[in-house]
Amino acid sequence: LQLRMKAPHYNRFVLPDAQRDSLDVVLVSPRNPLNIGAAARAMANFGFQRLSVVAPFDPTWREARSAIGAPDLLLNAVESSTFAEAVADCTLVAGTGTLTWRKPEQPVIQLPELAPLVSQELARGGRVALIFGSEKHGLIREDLSYCHLLVEIPTDPEQPSMNLGQAVAVCLYELTRSAESAPTTPFPSVISATFSGHLDLLAGVIEEAMQAVGYSPRAMQPANRHDLRLLFRRLTLTAHDTRRILGLFRRILWRLNHLGR
Amino acid sequence: LQLRMKAPHYNRFVLPDAQRDSLDVVLVSPRNPLNIGAAARAMANFGFQRLSVVAPFDPTWREARSAIGAPDLLLNAVESSTFAEAVADCTLVAGTGTLTWRKPEQPVIQLPELAPLVSQELARGGRVALIFGSEKHGLIREDLSYCHLLVEIPTDPEQPSMNLGQAVAVCLYELTRSAESAPTTPFPSVISATFSGHLDLLAGVIEEAMQAVGYSPRAMQPANRHDLRLLFRRLTLTAHDTRRILGLFRRILWRLNHLGR
Repeated sequence: LQLRMKAPHYNRFVLPDAQRDSLDVVLVSPRNPLNIGAAARAMANFGFQRLSVVAPFDPTWREARSAIGAPDLLLNAVESSTFAEAVADCTLVAGTGTLTWRKPEQPVIQLPELAPLVSQELARGGRVALIFGSEKHGLIREDLSYCHLLVEIPTDPEQPSMNLGQAVAVCLYELTRSAESAPTTPFPSVISATFSGHLDLLAGVIEEAMQAVGYSPRAMQPANRHDLRLLFRRLTLTAHDTRRILGLFRRILWRLNHLGR
Repeated sequence: LQLRMKAPHYNRFVLPDAQRDSLDVVLVSPRNPLNIGAAARAMANFGFQRLSVVAPFDPTWREARSAIGAPDLLLNAVESSTFAEAVADCTLVAGTGTLTWRKPEQPVIQLPELAPLVSQELARGGRVALIFGSEKHGLIREDLSYCHLLVEIPTDPEQPSMNLGQAVAVCLYELTRSAESAPTTPFPSVISATFSGHLDLLAGVIEEAMQAVGYSPRAMQPANRHDLRLLFRRLTLTAHDTRRILGLFRRILWRLNHLGR
């Protein structure tokens, strides 16, 4: 199995903490308290803190904030009555959605293209808002007019509309996905920790068991020995594996001899 | 702000339709019908069809399937009573989760590294299972022992645990993300060509032999079973290897029984 046991210098977050605090997640007129909670949870999962809610339906908003275990970021969320107010101090406003039925008036990018733009904007001291429309309508034309660009989440044209909480999770995952995530070098192989001689010892015991039980005709035995040798070098057995298998076959041989008497 | 109006040759899906139909999303003991529905919705959003559910809590499962607007893939979902049964015909079984509290026994990769492996496995005609544990526990050690590798979703260490529906959405998004994420260098072949069910068959015969020869005290047998399962998934056994080893152990068992009489 050729896998490294752990990525050696995997960069969990593209964005430094301080920059992530300059990104607002903005929910426009959310209707379902569970979705607000899910959005907040995804923010916590990916290390974002600033939630902003525009014109929430009052009972919904109260219910979401009073949920047991509501994260601090939900309690600290900023409430605005208008979209314009919510994004007033932002320098890059990115609307999200799928655009299958709507002719966009803004530049459209695909979600995988968003991170470099956000990263660049935050690095130069800007403030970014990522906007999610209501469950029912998504972002309406009026909302979109405040956006510098639209971010399309690449979904199946037959089922394009995502759940709000899931859309937030996918977008924030993308933003924190490592820039170097695509490995450029092949994975180093796991080295078998077993000495060649130990493998031969093991192959010898197995061959003995094969003979004891009449596994194959005598004429086939050299071929079997050859195959065993190849097999053990192809598998990446550890020293521990080797000892265990050796122990099992020694026990089998002992038992066969014992019964045979 | 430098933006192109539309990504010029953006590839919406890395995986062709036919290949996406060879990927199973497996939910282990889900407890919340809303989460099952959310997982199904994410699958529809990203063009996956095959949902499999292991040992669902009955009322939960009924409620999820009877929800208004439940997608076809939820109605067509396969129900299994055991994990082993659910993944029996899969050649690559990938568990998901966060590993902050658990010392993994399998190779661990980060989610952004998963797509090339899945893509390669599907391209060569394999069948892939992506496993999600229950909301409460995630995947337990027993479940994990059926997995070839673990996929870690890179979340904030302070809030690592994701909502089930959101975790499914993030993983499937990653798999269908732009082809830009595809590796530039070919990946070494990772996974054995053996069906998970065949490996279980093999482990079963070896366990029988262990018992027949009194390899270990009865109290150790569950631990041995667990270790065998891990070992077989770590080694890259081919279908041919599996048949040979199976043949040898069947022969050993036959011989032991024959001598014992």
